[in-house]
Amino acid sequence: MKNTLTAAVLLIGDELLSGSIQDENLGHIAKMLERRGIRVRETRIVPDVEAEIVDAVNALRTRYDYVFTTGGVGPTHDDITSDSIATAFGVKNVVQQDVFALIQSYLDKKGVAFTPAAQRMAYAPEGAEIIYSEQSIVPGYRVANVFVMAGVPRIMKIMLDAIIESLDIGQEILSREVHANVSEGEIAAALEAIQHKYTDVAIGSYPQDPDSKRSNYRVVFVVRGTQSQELSLVCDEILTACRDGGYEAVGV
Amino acid sequence: MKNTLTAAVLLIGDELLSGSIQDENLGHIAKMLERRGIRVRETRIVPDVEAEIVDAVNALRTRYDYVFTTGGVGPTHDDITSDSIATAFGVKNVVQQDVFALIQSYLDKKGVAFTPAAQRMAYAPEGAEIIYSEQSIVPGYRVANVFVMAGVPRIMKIMLDAIIESLDIGQEILSREVHANVSEGEIAAALEAIQHKYTDVAIGSYPQDPDSKRSNYRVVFVVRGTQSQELSLVCDEILTACRDGGYEAVGV
Repeated sequence: MKNTLTAAVLLIGDELLSGSIQDENLGHIAKMLERRGIRVRETRIVPDVEAEIVDAVNALRTRYDYVFTTGGVGPTHDDITSDSIATAFGVKNVVQQDVFALIQSYLDKKGVAFTPAAQRMAYAPEGAEIIYSEQSIVPGYRVANVFVMAGVPRIMKIMLDAIIESLDIGQEILSREVHANVSEGEIAAALEAIQHKYTDVAIGSYPQDPDSKRSNYRVVFVVRGTQSQELSLVCDEILTACRDGGYEAVGV
Repeated sequence: MKNTLTAAVLLIGDELLSGSIQDENLGHIAKMLERRGIRVRETRIVPDVEAEIVDAVNALRTRYDYVFTTGGVGPTHDDITSDSIATAFGVKNVVQQDVFALIQSYLDKKGVAFTPAAQRMAYAPEGAEIIYSEQSIVPGYRVANVFVMAGVPRIMKIMLDAIIESLDIGQEILSREVHANVSEGEIAAALEAIQHKYTDVAIGSYPQDPDSKRSNYRVVFVVRGTQSQELSLVCDEILTACRDGGYEAVGV
């Protein structure tokens, strides 16, 4: 799609890979970015291992306009994201005095000790731009095109809200759907012809489980692009193809 | 961890990246594999773009004992997984006569046409080993150490059930938890010392959202490894560290 920006998401954490925790962050990040004309084109999930994080960050930051990481920014031994980002950029992970003061003042009020371990949360790679939020004590930050956020969904959302306004705006991505009681195999040829005619839209075809909450129809076609009129034309052609084949279909 | 096998999961599909669909497959695959002593060490989500799928398959299959893909095996133009796997291995994507006959017989009984598009579901890379299941018409398959499965969770599960028995068995991975009303920052130093003492276990520390369903405690420590006795020792040390700090803690 023309004039859209691209992003990758890097989810960091052993627990996501073992299936103990179901990621909730990718979907939220993707939807927030889409509204700004930024498409997530790749996602990786890596364990709490520095070499793995470094390799992934370096692979992704050169390929996409933006990279968003979640997880690994707490005070414990398995929180190694800032160290890893620093290594990826070949700089030191250093204390951020303003963040340090902010956390100290917060903990002082609560009467909680600011331990050396907790102080690690005030570190970020040299040259990082701290992104403050009124709703969160520990802020996210950016290094070049890489944005670092917490893994806990509630905190990640607060950080992303603060980050989002600083991102460039791409062409808005629009989406339309056609739902049809069609056999995918019988509509596939017509669908492919439509896709070949409109190369600047992406047509996806998704068979639904019988217990799907998304649609009562057997297949959902999702049409995505940046030109509203073009999406309407594509949806009309899909609807016509379905109905010509004798299948029930509706635009959504 | 000693003697465990490693795996990567490759989730294929635009809809996962746009946030329209929430992946349900990774967690199930990870848990099924763990029971067989196979740990998922990396996951990637890529769009329906052949070059992206090929690159990811080739990067992952050389690094891990097994690779499991989901999605892109239907009859429509955006179903390009088999083509991509063939390209990744430098072979042709060819019709599998037995699978072709199976699908044809099924569709004949239903009185549904076996269109050229639907026939693509009978294709797999040259040399693929087809993995039949009594519960599914279209089977999954393996090429070397790469296993190809459907994206629809219900069908993926059937395919994985048929695949799982053919996998090598690694050392079983065990998991224990300690839940504690502790501040992560105040326990971090003790936790790190325990982790350094027991290098063959992985200790994760996970702060809980107040509305977490997982625990009523503020932090969940997950201890994973292959030696039951060692896990008990580690959990005891974590419990002691928490309680010595004046915090409530329980083994789970």
